[in-house]
Amino acid sequence: MTAIDLNSDLGESYGAWAMGDDAAMLAIVSSANVACGFHAGDPAGILKTVKAAAGKGVSIGAHVSYPDRVGFGRRDMDVTGGELIADVIYQIGALKGIAAAAGVGVGYVKPHGALYNRIAYDPKQGQAVIDGIKAIDPSLVLMGLAGSPILERARKSGLNVVAEAFADRAYTPDGQLVSRREEGSVLHDPQLIARRMLQLAREGTLEAIDGSTIRIDAQSICVHGDSPGAVAIAREIRRAFEADGITVRSFLTA
Amino acid sequence: MTAIDLNSDLGESYGAWAMGDDAAMLAIVSSANVACGFHAGDPAGILKTVKAAAGKGVSIGAHVSYPDRVGFGRRDMDVTGGELIADVIYQIGALKGIAAAAGVGVGYVKPHGALYNRIAYDPKQGQAVIDGIKAIDPSLVLMGLAGSPILERARKSGLNVVAEAFADRAYTPDGQLVSRREEGSVLHDPQLIARRMLQLAREGTLEAIDGSTIRIDAQSICVHGDSPGAVAIAREIRRAFEADGITVRSFLTA
Amino acid sequence: MTAIDLNSDLGESYGAWAMGDDAAMLAIVSSANVACGFHAGDPAGILKTVKAAAGKGVSIGAHVSYPDRVGFGRRDMDVTGGELIADVIYQIGALKGIAAAAGVGVGYVKPHGALYNRIAYDPKQGQAVIDGIKAIDPSLVLMGLAGSPILERARKSGLNVVAEAFADRAYTPDGQLVSRREEGSVLHDPQLIARRMLQLAREGTLEAIDGSTIRIDAQSICVHGDSPGAVAIAREIRRAFEADGITVRSFLTA
Amino acid sequence: MTAIDLNSDLGESYGAWAMGDDAAMLAIVSSANVACGFHAGDPAGILKTVKAAAGKGVSIGAHVSYPDRVGFGRRDMDVTGGELIADVIYQIGALKGIAAAAGVGVGYVKPHGALYNRIAYDPKQGQAVIDGIKAIDPSLVLMGLAGSPILERARKSGLNVVAEAFADRAYTPDGQLVSRREEGSVLHDPQLIARRMLQLAREGTLEAIDGSTIRIDAQSICVHGDSPGAVAIAREIRRAFEADGITVRSFLTA
Repeated sequence: MTAIDLNSDLGESYGAWAMGDDAAMLAIVSSANVACGFHAGDPAGILKTVKAAAGKGVSIGAHVSYPDRVGFGRRDMDVTGGELIADVIYQIGALKGIAAAAGVGVGYVKPHGALYNRIAYDPKQGQAVIDGIKAIDPSLVLMGLAGSPILERARKSGLNVVAEAFADRAYTPDGQLVSRREEGSVLHDPQLIARRMLQLAREGTLEAIDGSTIRIDAQSICVHGDSPGAVAIAREIRRAFEADGITVRSFLTA
Repeated sequence: MTAIDLNSDLGESYGAWAMGDDAAMLAIVSSANVACGFHAGDPAGILKTVKAAAGKGVSIGAHVSYPDRVGFGRRDMDVTGGELIADVIYQIGALKGIAAAAGVGVGYVKPHGALYNRIAYDPKQGQAVIDGIKAIDPSLVLMGLAGSPILERARKSGLNVVAEAFADRAYTPDGQLVSRREEGSVLHDPQLIARRMLQLAREGTLEAIDGSTIRIDAQSICVHGDSPGAVAIAREIRRAFEADGITVRSFLTA
Repeated sequence: MTAIDLNSDLGESYGAWAMGDDAAMLAIVSSANVACGFHAGDPAGILKTVKAAAGKGVSIGAHVSYPDRVGFGRRDMDVTGGELIADVIYQIGALKGIAAAAGVGVGYVKPHGALYNRIAYDPKQGQAVIDGIKAIDPSLVLMGLAGSPILERARKSGLNVVAEAFADRAYTPDGQLVSRREEGSVLHDPQLIARRMLQLAREGTLEAIDGSTIRIDAQSICVHGDSPGAVAIAREIRRAFEADGITVRSFLTA
Repeated sequence: MTAIDLNSDLGESYGAWAMGDDAAMLAIVSSANVACGFHAGDPAGILKTVKAAAGKGVSIGAHVSYPDRVGFGRRDMDVTGGELIADVIYQIGALKGIAAAAGVGVGYVKPHGALYNRIAYDPKQGQAVIDGIKAIDPSLVLMGLAGSPILERARKSGLNVVAEAFADRAYTPDGQLVSRREEGSVLHDPQLIARRMLQLAREGTLEAIDGSTIRIDAQSICVHGDSPGAVAIAREIRRAFEADGITVRSFLTA
């Protein structure tokens, strides 16, 4: 692989409250998961982020969420299928409208937070997300957790999918994310992380937490921008890729 | 004039709370002003209303509002131009997404409640609404109060506009709505209202509250569906039009 | 038993959206579970309901909920203990403030919807609700599902509790509510329901769905007011109690 | 005057979004205007701030607002008197509940943002705020803009009031705040500001923007904590007061 996508969650400010360093991240990533207003993002802030992403040629994805602003979309919710389908359509539509105003399009959908984790394995909510995407625009790509059943489910439903790995997370020997509650689940060393991501991009493998080598089939790598340390990690990954001749490029332009 | 548009505010339920009789109104009107989530309407409810409207061949308009659900968008707010532009884009985008999922399009925009009243005369907020509409889709028609400056402003900005009259409201001798605080401002007699609307559609005139005849240039008539009495008035207007050979037809299909 | 409490969910309108017939129910019940703004109820509407309840001498309970207005608090949410404790305190405090403005107090707490169902059996969220109540006012009584573990847990934590039965629900032979998904789970015949509640009040027993007789230890009976049929059932229960010499009286005044 | 109050807006984080440096400010001020959830503040965050304030012996005030989270309560709204009365009661009640859980009380009310500015001069909304405060607890003190009519209005209505000056704002020759739109309206030099506040505390006078000396009758001084520069200004004011023998003390403990 001589090209890979870097994605990050952006547009997560809300009104007077700032979050993350969108400007810094837009100089690093090739894909922006833009909040759609349900867990974060007010219209004026989303528009500003989308315009900045458009100016950098960064692809726009809809970062759809449960309707839970105070919980930042991080709390699992037992929404019904009908509610979830409509919530997905509404959020993608809103972001498409803002993207249109910025002269660009929305290329993919990445569910956020608790919804992301839930649909990775839950067939009912997973199918609702798929159905919502297909109802508004079946050409949208679904981004999901590498190795999780949602990707195959979406593919069978006719959606294009892209699998992502998490740059700063440890993996179990069977290719799952180590739970955040476990020691060593989150990595902090920029050089180590960059070396791991190089190996992932070059060989499709990672060292699991037990030292074994596992196969991870990912076309995109998720990096964070919610702290100066996180931005530094993302920057180091990009630097390492470029030094090694790997192009950072949206999967949509591949 | 042998055809006129009837429009009504629909999709104004919210979650477990019902409002209005959308099914009844969709058998009467030719244009549905559909709530976009800021004053009313949750995604699943909006989707249901848009699907029903699509099934009846009723045109879909975006009923955009200030972000004030508890106040039902009825309270004037000093939003900035930048906020309002983005709020308008977001709401229209969300409704466009839902309409796409229902296999139809959004044809026009009618601001709701306090925003409607404010932009009729306020050039700053009026221009922001116009700019928002143009940013997402300049082919959208703006529906506004017959005789108010917003229509000319929008036309000069390059938007198509449609003027509307209110079926159940009294007018002053200079063509303004009589304030709701004044006695006689709201009409209740279905036959009287229907006769007035016939005259409006046929001759472009109405009897003002002082008995004088005024000219009202309107291509659409707003009827309400928020009570059984309101539905009955709307039904009587439609009946009278049909009996008199006037087609009820969306201005978009004229 | 010659006296029993009837409770109902009230104050569940929201802004322009009406729900239930609070005036009718306040003539029937002895305890009002008043929405606190998280699933339903805006401040002006809550104040109106509390004043009406105060005028009728009906006891006020805080109907606390997950923060989920669009889902009416009916969707299970994985809130943390810290969030839930603070959410409970905030809601009770808000209702206490409104009750103070109406010249009365808040006597008990009844969690709403998905939170009610969750804490009946979930020790973590259950303890958070208990801790929240104790933090703001340990004299508040917790109302919970008759036969569920939350009551014993709360009692051990030092709270007074009251167990409630549901008038219009069928029970399993082991004293649980028959799931709403099962046929026969909801009863509709006012006379039948009234007879069952008389037996419950007199003998502490009910006929389960299989015909067996089960013991239900309840000091309060929940009735609904969200439809004319529901109000009629509640009225019939009250009538039957009074005809049989059973006083309908708040457990707080017992 | 050998003692004066310093107040600041605190508890204005919201869920995952942080705002201000509450810990730093609680070491400086004697009164904390705590957000009540309508413009900022989620229950868990408010509880944390109130506990911290309680631990420092800082007085707690209810920073009540219009219901406008996305606009941070900074946008003027035409709420009705009935809505505003109930909104004020609800917010004060919620904060009282949280304060009770922290073992302290709420001593005063300071309206926030657009509501603060509006009621300084608007008799209708001003009276509604007064009526709301009196309805829940007439012993609460209303904090308002020094020299504005709301203070006299509240006093006549039976409330105790406290007038505040703004440390970092220029004043007109007739004792009004210079509009933020004018050059020189906001002061930035910590030493200059501290000298001005010393003069205010000692002599009750300030130098107006035209160089004239004006009389400002204020028992409290508002300082900000929303940026490192703002915190530094607040700290310098406190340092100057202490160096000059002026005690920083809540007006409630005077």
